[in-house]
Amino acid sequence: MCWPYDTVLTVAFEVFRLLFFTLDSCHGIDMLNDAPTSGRIRSVQTPVIPFVQDLVTANPGTIPLGQGVVHFPPPTEAIQQLREFGGDPDHHLYGPLEGIEPLQVAIRQKLQRENALDLDDSAIVVTAGSNMAFLQALLTVADPGDEIILFLPYYFNQEMAIRMVNCVPVFVSTDAQHQPDVGALERAITPRTRVVVTVSPNNPTGAVYPETTLRQINRLCALRGIYHFSDEAYEYFTYADVLHFSPGSIHGAYRHTISFFSLSKSFGFAGWRVGYVVLPEHLLLSMRKVQDTNLICAAMPSQYAAIGALRAGYAYTAKWMPDLRRVRDTVLMRLAELGSRVSVVETSGAFYAFARINDTQMSDLELVRWLIETHQVAVVPGSAFGCDEGCWLRISYGALRPESVIAGIGRLTKGLQAIPA
Amino acid sequence: MCWPYDTVLTVAFEVFRLLFFTLDSCHGIDMLNDAPTSGRIRSVQTPVIPFVQDLVTANPGTIPLGQGVVHFPPPTEAIQQLREFGGDPDHHLYGPLEGIEPLQVAIRQKLQRENALDLDDSAIVVTAGSNMAFLQALLTVADPGDEIILFLPYYFNQEMAIRMVNCVPVFVSTDAQHQPDVGALERAITPRTRVVVTVSPNNPTGAVYPETTLRQINRLCALRGIYHFSDEAYEYFTYADVLHFSPGSIHGAYRHTISFFSLSKSFGFAGWRVGYVVLPEHLLLSMRKVQDTNLICAAMPSQYAAIGALRAGYAYTAKWMPDLRRVRDTVLMRLAELGSRVSVVETSGAFYAFARINDTQMSDLELVRWLIETHQVAVVPGSAFGCDEGCWLRISYGALRPESVIAGIGRLTKGLQAIPA
Repeated sequence: MCWPYDTVLTVAFEVFRLLFFTLDSCHGIDMLNDAPTSGRIRSVQTPVIPFVQDLVTANPGTIPLGQGVVHFPPPTEAIQQLREFGGDPDHHLYGPLEGIEPLQVAIRQKLQRENALDLDDSAIVVTAGSNMAFLQALLTVADPGDEIILFLPYYFNQEMAIRMVNCVPVFVSTDAQHQPDVGALERAITPRTRVVVTVSPNNPTGAVYPETTLRQINRLCALRGIYHFSDEAYEYFTYADVLHFSPGSIHGAYRHTISFFSLSKSFGFAGWRVGYVVLPEHLLLSMRKVQDTNLICAAMPSQYAAIGALRAGYAYTAKWMPDLRRVRDTVLMRLAELGSRVSVVETSGAFYAFARINDTQMSDLELVRWLIETHQVAVVPGSAFGCDEGCWLRISYGALRPESVIAGIGRLTKGLQAIPA
Repeated sequence: MCWPYDTVLTVAFEVFRLLFFTLDSCHGIDMLNDAPTSGRIRSVQTPVIPFVQDLVTANPGTIPLGQGVVHFPPPTEAIQQLREFGGDPDHHLYGPLEGIEPLQVAIRQKLQRENALDLDDSAIVVTAGSNMAFLQALLTVADPGDEIILFLPYYFNQEMAIRMVNCVPVFVSTDAQHQPDVGALERAITPRTRVVVTVSPNNPTGAVYPETTLRQINRLCALRGIYHFSDEAYEYFTYADVLHFSPGSIHGAYRHTISFFSLSKSFGFAGWRVGYVVLPEHLLLSMRKVQDTNLICAAMPSQYAAIGALRAGYAYTAKWMPDLRRVRDTVLMRLAELGSRVSVVETSGAFYAFARINDTQMSDLELVRWLIETHQVAVVPGSAFGCDEGCWLRISYGALRPESVIAGIGRLTKGLQAIPA
């Protein structure tokens, strides 16, 4: 049998082409496999809460003192709004970028009444949580290489956002009471500094920054032409008559202050994803560009629910505060009983205790894993907040009901006493 | 009367200090006022839909052929899920980053059944819409300076996202039928090319890319070690027996293909903000970093509603397609009647007609404003999609009920006939 010359040639060519293509294609995919992700994302730490959550799931019965959530449910006004949602065809369409009008009105009234903000030349943008507002504000004002100052320990998602958008986080220490060192802040400012971030009441320390400190920081920012990002997610959570102060209320501060607020913590619906940011009016057009590209608008059912929550208002959260105060007292008392094993500062806000564990060779990550696996209690490692020296833990007690606090903190203190040498 | 010397000195010093501080503070704020926003955000175009929306609001009674929304309501299954939401305390807490488990299961089944995706080594992440998924995917794989290829005309939010994260949009032309020119694509690839984006069915042209074209593009990406971002938001909207094809279904393509899906269009709840992205499993950890920093999780009420929508499934959307087909036929027929005034290609998908208006001196922006103000009908200017040569308009007919299409398209054609010279 004899094959025609051109058939042989065609077959040979096809075999060669397929072989070449396969090899070449492998080469292309290999190139991708060598560097599948962006450099910026490699510089970002792994989310710590899901890391802890996975350990909790793997160890059923673990009491969570990890995630920053409260134990109380959303107000009935919010649930009611959700029940009524959907009656109007407009509910299903895109809403305005800044949030629906009645929610804007409710937020504006709240900010004027409770935070004494001067809103004449400010704008409000509703986002799917305060984290998103922070990321969007960064994109709005900061370029790659710009320096963003965070106080140590920092809130991890803020450090992550900064690296993700190619800015440079600069860390400034706090004192033994977890209060900002304004002198150190001033020394840390360079010509590339674009933003100073404060979180008060603080995550992870619970420290509430005094009005004088916030005024100093805000003025320093004005003097040096720097934005002051003020994260006030925990504004409703203060103890012992300590008052929350909004730097945006300082006369003239609206021009360089961007304030972040959350509904998740105050109203017990972290998963509904509604927060908002107050920014100078002249930044609105730029923030709208980010909002349009990222979210378009916060989920409409959640926006309507938020109106209900704001109607319930601070009075709703206040109702739960005596419970939370008792939980806090118990947590601090039990930690104090551990003596020199644990150093913890009694702060006046949020629902966190940030504790240094002394005399242990374990890293914070090892300790967190060990506490979950052997004592069924979960906390968050301090390294996520930038505390790499010594072994630090964030203990979140917001999710504890008074009746379960004894069990949760009992497991934790028992575990901390039993740390292997 | 004589003042002590040191009092005079102190007062003088204080006056000087206050004056100096005030001047200095003004200087700081001046610096901010000189460059209040980031360079990256200045490079991003102003959101076009809100621009059109503002004109519509200022001209009551305008029929909107602007925003890309459908006229039909969400399926009752979705509304029902929302009614039942809130029964479980977990509904109010943060959900998993990737989305709640039953929604993950429902999406997985949908993708296997309808899109023939091989999901063995892929992950699904639920976001607050497909725009957000696109932005997050960019942050996950691309660094500043990386080139991202878009076909012209592009979907504006994608070009905005690219500039916002300091990547470089590279534009590749399409042919007279708005189909990709694969040769031109190949020539546009450089060592800095990181992603090729396809949108099929296309926004703004309605072009559905044939399977062979998408295979060619996907293979070219594999050969050159480039990601293929496949935006399939309009997958359910095809006409005249033209089929939608998912490049993620190509054997082995899961390794370099990232596919974007939306529930907004298919199920009539654009404002509820749920979409999802399919990506290679080995990118999940990096995408989780972005998700944790930006959204944490899609709003829980919307996630539960999405389960209901997926239960209703394609059959729900299909029910509305005969209506939409009639609307489309009317729109194309009426535009054809305008003769040489308008050039429009009859494409087979989405709910857009992308029309070139001939023999006019007006810019697209001027024309859009004029049509709204004098003929009470709103469309979107082509320059938002990168079409600066000639006067282009995107006509969105998804929001028209068959009974109102006559009025809407009537106003538009009347307006286009009456354009002043």
